[in-house]
Amino acid sequence: MSNDQKTSLNVSGRKVTVVGGGVIGASWAAIFVANGMRVTVNDPDPDVAKKVFSYCEEAKPSIRALGYADFNINDISFESDLAKALEGADYVQENGPERLDFKSDLWKRIESEAPENALLLSSSSGIEATKQSVGMKQPGRLLIGHPFNPPHLMPLVEVVPGEKTPRELTAGAIEFYEAIGKVALEIKVEVPGFVANRLQSAIFRECVYLVKEGVVSVSDLDKVVTSSLGIRWATGGPFLSFHLGGGAGGFAHFIDHLAPGMASRWKGQMATDVQFDEDTNKLLLTQIREAYGNSSIPLLNAERDVKEVAVIKGLQGGIDRLDGAV
Amino acid sequence: MSNDQKTSLNVSGRKVTVVGGGVIGASWAAIFVANGMRVTVNDPDPDVAKKVFSYCEEAKPSIRALGYADFNINDISFESDLAKALEGADYVQENGPERLDFKSDLWKRIESEAPENALLLSSSSGIEATKQSVGMKQPGRLLIGHPFNPPHLMPLVEVVPGEKTPRELTAGAIEFYEAIGKVALEIKVEVPGFVANRLQSAIFRECVYLVKEGVVSVSDLDKVVTSSLGIRWATGGPFLSFHLGGGAGGFAHFIDHLAPGMASRWKGQMATDVQFDEDTNKLLLTQIREAYGNSSIPLLNAERDVKEVAVIKGLQGGIDRLDGAV
Repeated sequence: MSNDQKTSLNVSGRKVTVVGGGVIGASWAAIFVANGMRVTVNDPDPDVAKKVFSYCEEAKPSIRALGYADFNINDISFESDLAKALEGADYVQENGPERLDFKSDLWKRIESEAPENALLLSSSSGIEATKQSVGMKQPGRLLIGHPFNPPHLMPLVEVVPGEKTPRELTAGAIEFYEAIGKVALEIKVEVPGFVANRLQSAIFRECVYLVKEGVVSVSDLDKVVTSSLGIRWATGGPFLSFHLGGGAGGFAHFIDHLAPGMASRWKGQMATDVQFDEDTNKLLLTQIREAYGNSSIPLLNAERDVKEVAVIKGLQGGIDRLDGAV
Repeated sequence: MSNDQKTSLNVSGRKVTVVGGGVIGASWAAIFVANGMRVTVNDPDPDVAKKVFSYCEEAKPSIRALGYADFNINDISFESDLAKALEGADYVQENGPERLDFKSDLWKRIESEAPENALLLSSSSGIEATKQSVGMKQPGRLLIGHPFNPPHLMPLVEVVPGEKTPRELTAGAIEFYEAIGKVALEIKVEVPGFVANRLQSAIFRECVYLVKEGVVSVSDLDKVVTSSLGIRWATGGPFLSFHLGGGAGGFAHFIDHLAPGMASRWKGQMATDVQFDEDTNKLLLTQIREAYGNSSIPLLNAERDVKEVAVIKGLQGGIDRLDGAV
């Protein structure tokens, strides 16, 4: 948040070009404009302005709840011509379709039109900067700045430099995202799925397995997570959790007493060959309907946003109290 | 919480015998007494009263923050003789060492001394009721009531009946835990690790792998989780998250467009053979020290508790606001 900056960089008044005005682009536009940036959205869709304004209008209460002053979403401008949209840009946040051919072609065009000092950032959740940038004259200019959905609420941005990206650009990307209130973390190796999505994928394999085996329903599995692991991991990550799970001996105790059992379970007892075959899909869809079918997707999304703001604000408040107490 | 009950059962004044007064037993004692129960702790340790009182004193502010009225921890009584401790018990919550021989011997003794109608519940995180109860005359009487640490804060209790447990005892266990404000969920198959710990184990394999490969540090991995997945999963479980991740098409869209890619990554790209070998342990311990070595374990625990209360309260507040709004 603007009142929680780790950096002295002030991006107010700086120009960011949001390339691609879908859901991710619209969410970026909302948080950029809330931070006082000049925002231009580039998208060939003639209805893009309507869609982005509608998204930002819905996002506004959540962003204000995070502590931002009022902002005018009409300050977001739209320009369907890429070259014009990029004029004077300090930052480019790209949110195009997740297709390598599309992205690598797009970056060649962006590179030739954008100012030389503009920071070039891709929201891609899966295609590495090194791959996207093959056709660029200076492939090192491109970095991944992968947000966690929805970007206007979720603190995390995974910053993943390409193989040729110089250190100062990585530092600049981190500084930029920190300046708009994000937790920007450098991912040091370009692995598929980066970090957050790999972890999400790892847990989901076990989730699908447990439902398939009839151990729990979809609804109860979600409740297990929201009433235990979710609360734990909103407050401390897996390593800190096992550091504390080791009692007075900390992580060393965990390594000596708990890790061997865990490693043997990894070998013999966890889900391995889980597939989305017809029976599995039917089972999951039926149980999803039983669990969530009574609510519309927009309502569930609105509930999620309210709860996420509550957790983020709750943690902020909790940490403030803690700072006062310790 | 007492003001959030799903059941009409009132456990105030009912007697619960807490067998084993370690950290888990002490935490149970705190939340039981906060709910107005008569609590007797049975433990051979001559210092158990001092330890339990000290634990409960520290837990008290968190429990009160959850909305409980003041309570007197001196109401907890101690009885080192098992037969006397079990006199008149309505509920028995066992927290002995995680050793099958110890537990099965203990349950034979508990069964012979406890009132016939007492509900027999084991906090075991890993040893199934069917195994623990082999020596009992009525093995169906035993159930797992596995809390998530710390039990006085975390909502989840996994209720896992043994193979011979009748439905009404499972229902009784769920009703009991709901009466003390918990989210009690039935685990329908006795799989090792039940559900929450299996999920935790699944994600941790990938965590260790990513640190080992140098993709992120221990510190950054924990930050990735607290700034994205933790917040998401505190508010909605993995299935709901992918239901919403599918956009307007919901989980069906996820199945068609995102699941195939995920399944292929499960096969080829995720961590498989992760071991806690000497090099891995050294690396993890070094990075744990770098990340958390400046704080003592008690301080980190206190911070965690404050944050967990903040998240739980934040969600409660968020949900109340939502109820008002929709």
